[in-house]
Amino acid sequence: MTDAWTHFEDWTGTLSDIGGAGALLGWDRETGMPPAGSETRARQLGTLAAIHHRELTRPDIDGALAELEADTSLTAERARQVEVMVRARRRAQRMPESLVRELSEATSRCVGVWIEMRGAGDYAAFAEPFRRVVELKRVHARTVADGVEPYDALLDDYEPGARAAELEPVFADLRERLTPLVELGAARPRPGLPQRHWPAESQVALARDLAELVGYDMSAGAVALSAHPFTSSPGYGDVRFTTRVDEANPVGSIMAVLHETGHALYEQGFPAAYARTPLLDAPSMGAHESQSRFWENHVGRTRPFWERIGPLLHGRFPEAMRGLDAADLQREATAVEPSLIRVEADEVTYNLHIALRFELELALIRGDLEVEDLPTEWNARMRDFLGIVPPHDGVGVMQDIHWPEGLFGYFPTYTLGNLYAAQLAEAADTHVDGLDRAIADGRFAEILAFMRERVHVWANLRPTRDVMVEATGGPLSADALVAHLRGVAAG
Amino acid sequence: MTDAWTHFEDWTGTLSDIGGAGALLGWDRETGMPPAGSETRARQLGTLAAIHHRELTRPDIDGALAELEADTSLTAERARQVEVMVRARRRAQRMPESLVRELSEATSRCVGVWIEMRGAGDYAAFAEPFRRVVELKRVHARTVADGVEPYDALLDDYEPGARAAELEPVFADLRERLTPLVELGAARPRPGLPQRHWPAESQVALARDLAELVGYDMSAGAVALSAHPFTSSPGYGDVRFTTRVDEANPVGSIMAVLHETGHALYEQGFPAAYARTPLLDAPSMGAHESQSRFWENHVGRTRPFWERIGPLLHGRFPEAMRGLDAADLQREATAVEPSLIRVEADEVTYNLHIALRFELELALIRGDLEVEDLPTEWNARMRDFLGIVPPHDGVGVMQDIHWPEGLFGYFPTYTLGNLYAAQLAEAADTHVDGLDRAIADGRFAEILAFMRERVHVWANLRPTRDVMVEATGGPLSADALVAHLRGVAAG
Repeated sequence: MTDAWTHFEDWTGTLSDIGGAGALLGWDRETGMPPAGSETRARQLGTLAAIHHRELTRPDIDGALAELEADTSLTAERARQVEVMVRARRRAQRMPESLVRELSEATSRCVGVWIEMRGAGDYAAFAEPFRRVVELKRVHARTVADGVEPYDALLDDYEPGARAAELEPVFADLRERLTPLVELGAARPRPGLPQRHWPAESQVALARDLAELVGYDMSAGAVALSAHPFTSSPGYGDVRFTTRVDEANPVGSIMAVLHETGHALYEQGFPAAYARTPLLDAPSMGAHESQSRFWENHVGRTRPFWERIGPLLHGRFPEAMRGLDAADLQREATAVEPSLIRVEADEVTYNLHIALRFELELALIRGDLEVEDLPTEWNARMRDFLGIVPPHDGVGVMQDIHWPEGLFGYFPTYTLGNLYAAQLAEAADTHVDGLDRAIADGRFAEILAFMRERVHVWANLRPTRDVMVEATGGPLSADALVAHLRGVAAG
Repeated sequence: MTDAWTHFEDWTGTLSDIGGAGALLGWDRETGMPPAGSETRARQLGTLAAIHHRELTRPDIDGALAELEADTSLTAERARQVEVMVRARRRAQRMPESLVRELSEATSRCVGVWIEMRGAGDYAAFAEPFRRVVELKRVHARTVADGVEPYDALLDDYEPGARAAELEPVFADLRERLTPLVELGAARPRPGLPQRHWPAESQVALARDLAELVGYDMSAGAVALSAHPFTSSPGYGDVRFTTRVDEANPVGSIMAVLHETGHALYEQGFPAAYARTPLLDAPSMGAHESQSRFWENHVGRTRPFWERIGPLLHGRFPEAMRGLDAADLQREATAVEPSLIRVEADEVTYNLHIALRFELELALIRGDLEVEDLPTEWNARMRDFLGIVPPHDGVGVMQDIHWPEGLFGYFPTYTLGNLYAAQLAEAADTHVDGLDRAIADGRFAEILAFMRERVHVWANLRPTRDVMVEATGGPLSADALVAHLRGVAAG
């Protein structure tokens, strides 16, 4: 017994170390690596992925796993680790090596063509390698699937236990309730910001100010610049995030900082005892996104938050802020306007962008939609949901890297995160005696303590659903999000 | 045949990728990792080292290796790769896993005690774990040794093919010829620099200026700050270095930059075709050090170099340079003075610090000297070679991390590098029609081209000795270094 556990612990510790090394290589690629290093870096990441796969599927762990699975005396922590690893291992074993290799080649090729063709929106050129990716993902889904819905097998990689059958009514409901809010929000006047210069170094300094203001621990993290903001944890005690800057407008950067800080606070809240174990993780992407969206949208876009950080803004940008107050920037942060690009979308339209993608990728994997018909379907939904149509596919169906990379089943987790975030914000509102008041008072430690004890402390010990039902007091529902977005749209 | 080569190439590519990942983890630990990440990082590095060792010694490569070793039709490039890998593999296989583990534990423990006890110079406390390290290194040397001199087995890790029997007369000769130069140099007046503030950011900016001035390619590199300067290459096209800054005196930082740039220029000059192969390496530490010492001492400490960079210095430090000229700083860079600490020693005394260490570690490994007698022997040599005695062992025998870490056989490569650097400088002097004149003219590209074609381009294709004999026109000799240091001492 002890032997089986020791064997198991060595195995998962090794896997964690390999994963952490890969995370650092990825972080460095976006933040520090010189351009000439990219080819070798790609090979290194491929080698680490292969070593990770070989270690995950090594046969000599079978005995220990069988013994531990049968052992009813394990603690909850240990039992969950065994469950998580048995599932990960089974999924890895089900994927034939030939399919892994074919998928890797097909997506590499497709991403290459995507990078080249996206600017011009040349869908015909893109469709050829993309058809192969979709074909292989259909095979992948059928190969790994447990039940009747192959898409669920893909979804399961990002949101364990989620089912398309449960998501479809949620998205249909959201779509119906959000469409009218778009018009309401877009009708609000949007004065915009005067032309000013917001120096990059001051934006990076502000990023640190804001992260520390809400509770980020800089002695266990780092902040850097990258083209696309992201959060990464190469190991316990080391949770980093990046931001981007636009010297003509600081609002996007500030929202990105709050978003990434939300991800980072989550991982900084994982228990130290879970270091180098499968428990040092979020139970799903939706859970992770609930944290980024909570701090971004339910804290960071509020009027009291901007009033609170007013002195910081004036301190960091004495020139650019001259004659402006925090409310001017907050208005920018909550403006609603139908737009073509998901990553630039406001809170209200954002989930319609996701609904569109969910419907289309589900149909693609089911075989109800073919690659050649995708742009037509995309554009029709853009007209229906948002009232605008992309002038070309580069700012339409070709805008995201997810599909060329084969990441089907990922998009819905963004909206799941938004749904959970809104439900958590309602629960927090009660808990801290008014969320807006707590923000106005600067009681960020209280807000963070709520998240720590309701969400962070569980890390991957329990499935997302269980954590969220207990934390929010109810099952997944669109009501909280719709109520919140109604407020945003009304201004 | 092709199969054996493909198998071999996959194997060495994988090893190179694992090594590169480890290099990045090490780089990041010193430059970007938050303090709280150190425990997990140590585990990750241990896991990568174990995976590297497992891969290096995997049994299923034996067939391919045997086939390739017997194949007389291999190109020189391929034959050298096979030779290098067979040797590395044999060395790894000879080390029993129990010894590897015991050494790792003993050195970890010894480094821990060293960190704690060095400040107070408590040798008695240090000696206890250090005795175990020496014991194990004696076993290690005997286990791996090919011939009668066990020390050679350790030396071989850093300087393949070098022999204690050849180094002993070289060091004896150096010691005899350098000792009188110390007095000569110390007699020169050293006015010092006035108290000024040299801002850290300007020193880092100057580091980039200087590196690029002599030919460092920033699009294939990066510069960062760390406690101890070092150079690291996580992969082809990515050769980085660090510097340190002292805001009271920029000379040390400038010399460190030239030193590390020398290492970095070397690796940036390796052929692209050698990426991810065992040829993308220096043939020895001595070869590597020849490059850092050449740029540091034979370019960077010269009067024409400081005159050349005078405008850069005034541009970066308008306040601190007021009333100073480059010659004032150059005088600091070439001052000779017996001192206790190796890493702060001038060019002349430096090699005496190394001679002392070489004699002592050779005696330790041979069993002619015991750990308890080490401080007495150290202090006696300090008096003989430099005329000073450490007030306590923290600034004497306990000053370096090498011995606590078990790095016996490493020190001599520093002086080998100095010897080669001086011989290369003599050859370069002829080749570029006066090295000082080329520096004065700013013809750094010409100097670099000389190094590229005589040294860099070979990378690990040929042993150090062969490369150096051809590049310098003669065998290893102390004459060039002594002549150079006589000039330094005379001022």
